[in-house]
Amino acid sequence: MPSAIKVGVIGAGSATFSAGLVRDICLQRSLAGSHVTLMDIDEDRLAPVHTFAQRYAAELGADVTFDMALDREQALGDADFVINTAMYGGHDYVEGLRERTEDRGYYRGFRVEQILNIRLMLSVARDMERLCPEAWLIQAGNPVFEGCTAMSRETGVKVCGICHGHYGCRELAGTLGLDPEKVTAQAIGFNHCIFLTHFECEGRDALPLIDEWVARDSEAFWRDRRPGYWDNQMARAAVEIYKLLGLFPIGDTTRKGGWWFHTDLEAKKRWYGEELGGFDSEIGWSEYLRSLDEEVSRIHEAAADESAKLTEAFPPEPSGEQHLPLIDALVNDNRVELQVNVPNHGAIEGIPDDVVVEVPALCSARGIQPYHVGRLPDLVMVNVILPRLLEAERWIHLALRPDARMLMAIILEDHRTKSYEQAEQFCREVLARPEFGEVAEEARHAAPATEHQR
Amino acid sequence: MPSAIKVGVIGAGSATFSAGLVRDICLQRSLAGSHVTLMDIDEDRLAPVHTFAQRYAAELGADVTFDMALDREQALGDADFVINTAMYGGHDYVEGLRERTEDRGYYRGFRVEQILNIRLMLSVARDMERLCPEAWLIQAGNPVFEGCTAMSRETGVKVCGICHGHYGCRELAGTLGLDPEKVTAQAIGFNHCIFLTHFECEGRDALPLIDEWVARDSEAFWRDRRPGYWDNQMARAAVEIYKLLGLFPIGDTTRKGGWWFHTDLEAKKRWYGEELGGFDSEIGWSEYLRSLDEEVSRIHEAAADESAKLTEAFPPEPSGEQHLPLIDALVNDNRVELQVNVPNHGAIEGIPDDVVVEVPALCSARGIQPYHVGRLPDLVMVNVILPRLLEAERWIHLALRPDARMLMAIILEDHRTKSYEQAEQFCREVLARPEFGEVAEEARHAAPATEHQR
Repeated sequence: MPSAIKVGVIGAGSATFSAGLVRDICLQRSLAGSHVTLMDIDEDRLAPVHTFAQRYAAELGADVTFDMALDREQALGDADFVINTAMYGGHDYVEGLRERTEDRGYYRGFRVEQILNIRLMLSVARDMERLCPEAWLIQAGNPVFEGCTAMSRETGVKVCGICHGHYGCRELAGTLGLDPEKVTAQAIGFNHCIFLTHFECEGRDALPLIDEWVARDSEAFWRDRRPGYWDNQMARAAVEIYKLLGLFPIGDTTRKGGWWFHTDLEAKKRWYGEELGGFDSEIGWSEYLRSLDEEVSRIHEAAADESAKLTEAFPPEPSGEQHLPLIDALVNDNRVELQVNVPNHGAIEGIPDDVVVEVPALCSARGIQPYHVGRLPDLVMVNVILPRLLEAERWIHLALRPDARMLMAIILEDHRTKSYEQAEQFCREVLARPEFGEVAEEARHAAPATEHQR
Repeated sequence: MPSAIKVGVIGAGSATFSAGLVRDICLQRSLAGSHVTLMDIDEDRLAPVHTFAQRYAAELGADVTFDMALDREQALGDADFVINTAMYGGHDYVEGLRERTEDRGYYRGFRVEQILNIRLMLSVARDMERLCPEAWLIQAGNPVFEGCTAMSRETGVKVCGICHGHYGCRELAGTLGLDPEKVTAQAIGFNHCIFLTHFECEGRDALPLIDEWVARDSEAFWRDRRPGYWDNQMARAAVEIYKLLGLFPIGDTTRKGGWWFHTDLEAKKRWYGEELGGFDSEIGWSEYLRSLDEEVSRIHEAAADESAKLTEAFPPEPSGEQHLPLIDALVNDNRVELQVNVPNHGAIEGIPDDVVVEVPALCSARGIQPYHVGRLPDLVMVNVILPRLLEAERWIHLALRPDARMLMAIILEDHRTKSYEQAEQFCREVLARPEFGEVAEEARHAAPATEHQR
């Protein structure tokens, strides 16, 4: 018998994300009778998504209802699940900020907007404590690592971050000539910072095939291939990270890597592909934004055209995202292994329990039970995982307890910072921006130097 | 009744260190009847120290005997205490290495010799396990932090690192116009990385006086003063670190600070004093080496001149170093508070138990009992203490389990590294140096990429 639930989607104006989610929930017959509130602060972006959802369910004859909301209370009230895909200011804001940050010597920006995103996530989680304290929060918007860690620490809400980056294992398998369906893989760490520890194909260790591919095929692969903007799993940077650390980076992990991959477009082209310079170069990222715009237009136009058959333009197939499988597992005790972001609680050795890690977990009516995955090798722990954790702690601290000194520390730590003055100026400029007004105001009240000892 | 003990001094050819130690042990009447073996691999440096020691004891009528040894077994056999002040290759070696490293873009060197020093310390501790397993090892040579952590982890020897950097608290007190004798201070962290958490003068909190001095007197202080090479406690860099972290850095802590203090001589002059650019600039360091040479000549000449009255040239006053007070406390149950470097065991929260921290401890016949000092503020933990720990872990790993990848990680992490090629070249060059032959050989057998999972 199906279980009817209430789902609230925050930031539902993200048309591509929501279209996938709508499709998935309409297909999830075990959740028949459910209701979804689509919430966004931007009505122009939200309304077409709501229309799309209603018409898609009707076409498919799915027993799911949708309403839309501009305020959060309506989405969170009585919710069993909240999916948060909101992004502070949207892509336009980030692009504008990036441009001004580049003027200060930070090629491709600094991501200071993370502070605002973590604060946005926290305010959603705090509202949930009040309005739906028993609900699960499925965090889709970034930064998943910092945000989920902050929310788990600061609220009593059950938080799980979900990302599709780990599917990079399938691409790896395909490139090695394996059938992705026959491969099992374990990639662990933090969101966007996961490493392949186990890789088996029909019961046989497939890790040695990576070394073989690197030695024999990789150069030809890079020479002959014209990578798309989404293409980083098998980039030269991924192999170099593998050589430096001994474990293969999976999914978005490769996008970051070290500072030396990102000094300029030339470096990006060398490490991520001649044509685009990877996902995050000025070329790759514009391609991504352009394709995103195209898809949004396609959804908006389809929603506006009452004669359009939505299930033809958007075939009723599962998106492959884990959100609905997770909800189904928790609600209907459908026991599945998913890749989740939840507090560590000993899953990865050497990481505090209150840090959110990305690991495989059994999901069922019992909840989310991460597998104990043991230790990562020293090279990975000391050079990537623990430094990444410190970076996260700085951003989290900055979001929770704004302090210009912590922002200075983040800026000074960045390899692109060439002088103390550059850091001081950039720090001042960030805090002077209107959207950082609240942060700057709180920072003015940060503990004075010697306060903690008293 | 005095307790006669046997002390072995490794690297006793360091004349200035040994002259202080000889004076201290001759003055320590509670250890009358003791014997000291002075050991060094360089007989030309060792013999004058031995002569100095014998004549000094005779002049003073101290009941202490000395012999000298070129091999370690003689110094360690039956030892109750081993004091290790040895330094791989000595200052000449380090200066030569520094010069060649500067050619590669690393102003003032890279300190890769740390690997050799940690390995040297470990080999002493391993010999002690065999020859004097019950003895205490007092580590004086650098790097104290990495070396003591590695030795405590890898051997069963009782290790305590001793340094005089924390006496910077006295200089701070004096600068603020306080009587250093009336001040109590707590400065904690890692060796050469300690921060003032408590500072009281006759029972009153003296921390606010720092803020007053910074606001009112610091600029005049820096303008009027002609600092000596040893002068970093009250440098502009110290105050800037204080502003960034909220706790005042003590002693050698200021010498490191952030990369931005050390980009070139101009930066060093700005932050550490116009004249010399601080202890570690090319000017300050030559001054230091010159004064060291002078003192060594003075000791050598005094030892060679049989008519010289040593107790006149080297008055019989305690050096102020903690080595003899520590030995006396452990042997004779003289209960004193000393600043020690021992495994954490919960003294500082948030640091693993097997990491050696610098904290105050009660020293007595019971052993060394560090005080529980609690948490350091986030700004200090996340921006200095934990990054410094990761740096230490890299060097320790490199010394214990040489791996070119770990050396690459250290080089790439350095803010002075401008490109991946520079790092690769420097890494290759280090491992090609003859004194790194053993390290390079072991590195060739480092675990292959995917080995750990098998």
